[in-house]
Amino acid sequence: MRAAMYYGNNKLDIEDIPEPTPGEGQVKVKVSRNGICGTDLHEFYDGPIFIPPSDPHPLTGKAMPLVLGHEFSGVVTDLGAGVTDIDEGDRVTIEPLYRCGECRPCKSGHYNLCTVIGFHGLMADGGMAEYTVVPRNQIHVLPDSVSVEMGALVEPMSVAYHAAVLGAVGDQDSALIFGAGPIGIGLWFALRGMGLTEIDVVEPSPTRRQSIEKLGARTLDPTSQDVSALIADRTNGNGVDAAFDAAGVAPAVEAALECVGERRPLISVAIYDRPLPTPLINLVLRERRIQGTICYTSDDYRAVVDLMSRGHYDTTGWVDTIPLSGVVEQGFEPLRAGRKMKLLVDPTL
Amino acid sequence: MRAAMYYGNNKLDIEDIPEPTPGEGQVKVKVSRNGICGTDLHEFYDGPIFIPPSDPHPLTGKAMPLVLGHEFSGVVTDLGAGVTDIDEGDRVTIEPLYRCGECRPCKSGHYNLCTVIGFHGLMADGGMAEYTVVPRNQIHVLPDSVSVEMGALVEPMSVAYHAAVLGAVGDQDSALIFGAGPIGIGLWFALRGMGLTEIDVVEPSPTRRQSIEKLGARTLDPTSQDVSALIADRTNGNGVDAAFDAAGVAPAVEAALECVGERRPLISVAIYDRPLPTPLINLVLRERRIQGTICYTSDDYRAVVDLMSRGHYDTTGWVDTIPLSGVVEQGFEPLRAGRKMKLLVDPTL
Ligand SMILES: [Zn+2]
Ligand SMILES: [Zn+2]
Ligand SMILES: [Zn+2]
Ligand SMILES: [Zn+2]
Repeated sequence: MRAAMYYGNNKLDIEDIPEPTPGEGQVKVKVSRNGICGTDLHEFYDGPIFIPPSDPHPLTGKAMPLVLGHEFSGVVTDLGAGVTDIDEGDRVTIEPLYRCGECRPCKSGHYNLCTVIGFHGLMADGGMAEYTVVPRNQIHVLPDSVSVEMGALVEPMSVAYHAAVLGAVGDQDSALIFGAGPIGIGLWFALRGMGLTEIDVVEPSPTRRQSIEKLGARTLDPTSQDVSALIADRTNGNGVDAAFDAAGVAPAVEAALECVGERRPLISVAIYDRPLPTPLINLVLRERRIQGTICYTSDDYRAVVDLMSRGHYDTTGWVDTIPLSGVVEQGFEPLRAGRKMKLLVDPTL
Repeated sequence: MRAAMYYGNNKLDIEDIPEPTPGEGQVKVKVSRNGICGTDLHEFYDGPIFIPPSDPHPLTGKAMPLVLGHEFSGVVTDLGAGVTDIDEGDRVTIEPLYRCGECRPCKSGHYNLCTVIGFHGLMADGGMAEYTVVPRNQIHVLPDSVSVEMGALVEPMSVAYHAAVLGAVGDQDSALIFGAGPIGIGLWFALRGMGLTEIDVVEPSPTRRQSIEKLGARTLDPTSQDVSALIADRTNGNGVDAAFDAAGVAPAVEAALECVGERRPLISVAIYDRPLPTPLINLVLRERRIQGTICYTSDDYRAVVDLMSRGHYDTTGWVDTIPLSGVVEQGFEPLRAGRKMKLLVDPTL
């Protein structure tokens, strides 16, 4: 079968490798779509970062080289020994986390914080291939109403949903999202799915603003509008009930900490590449908080799939499909240049 | 009567003024002790900051000049019209917050965040005088077992207690306090009062370390010890259950965000004079949070007075008393120079 094999910094080959066989407790999946995410770009252009260069990962036993791809949907084609609660032909989405089950976060249900966490597609052969095998507990069956494109988006949408849950908002609450990339879009869908109607998205890029506006979002342009003043005015000085930083830059953090109400959170769902100057006095004076969030657990997966099945998500205008042979030229390169927002690899093309 | 009258930057006079008369709903208090705090130093050396220079405060109708002092205890000597639930001769401590009762935080019980908040001793004539009059709702009666020195410390100890509550810790939990000034000491007493035994206090100053060690605290010296490594070792890599920043400097925030466990808080109870470089990535990767805290409500006052009545607080080695005539020379100056930790003014001296 064909697969996108990662050999280290700037080295990715589309090559023919043997089809994998499902071991005990594993399921073989024919991949339908696999999303490319920022993590993949980091591994390719700046890595290896998460991918083990030589020492095998303790939970998967795998190291470089390996097949990329951790955001994917597919169809079950074979079952390993002991797997009885899923059928060949089932359409599925994969929750790619390997966890130890033994550490404190695992035992408390927060396995997204497992101290030895692994990812399918970073610490095991992933979804940028015609087939892959995954443990049974990483599989969620998709209802017929959820397309394979949607199925490949469940992973990033679950990152955003998990963040939205930490925002602790109710349907009458207001929210402010900084950044209209895939996670910002996912936050908007998640909050809308929770019933919120008072949501603004702050995004400096005109193309990203237009993109999320076409989905129905209300936007603010921080390069020409005074976001803090507008929000203060709109909320009678109370501030919004939750702010979300999916931008990861200092101006977003600063504005967010002016806009969020007393005792309300700024949820940080960005990968900050350096410490940012943070006006902590704005936490103190209004008893605000900054809450970090990462990944998801199966609760988030189930919630997102349910919202998708009820038509709450829309790929119009921000998701495109490319062939496996074009992962670098038609995938990494336009994403890195900001010419595309989200790309799904179709391994059959 | 004699009073310490604030006239603006570097201008404070000990002068004779008429004794105040309690109006409707007010109580006249003969001041026993009044603590000097960092806010007073800021007003004297850098102010006016909180004190209204000319426009009267909306809740008190007062502006400069006025009598300083917001941390005090005393004895009730006269009751204004309509005050029936307190007696002359009662020993009391004052909770100096004026609040509007109308804004969202007031209505939700968080009147420490009142949008028009005022302080007795900053927006009304305060406790650095022989007498002062306060609204009935600012008065808490002291049990006989709580001394007037303790009574004057209830205010800063309540700031710390309120912060400790936001730490959301149980008696089996561990905590790490950065800074061993009066608020750090207050955090230590509050957490001990809540039943915690695993508490470390991080403080670079040898005299401050010795001071809190004499009260029974375990300390760490960040200038010679690797705090993050020690805490990781002591907690099997899990981190502490809550960290508290009462230092307000970048190294404390950085270390705290390495030491606190997953999904656990760093409580910020410092007045940050500028944005600090903050490694927000450490919030994201472990779903930690930074929670701001300010002041207190009557719940905190009651809890601190109760702990004091049961012998949980100790003034040994960190609290001294000075006469009213010495507010600047024996008070502000040694406090500013770091030669004293906490000073109480006795207006009868
Ligand atoms: Zn990803
Ligand atoms: Zn684990
Ligand atoms: Zn004070
Ligand atoms: Zn109010």
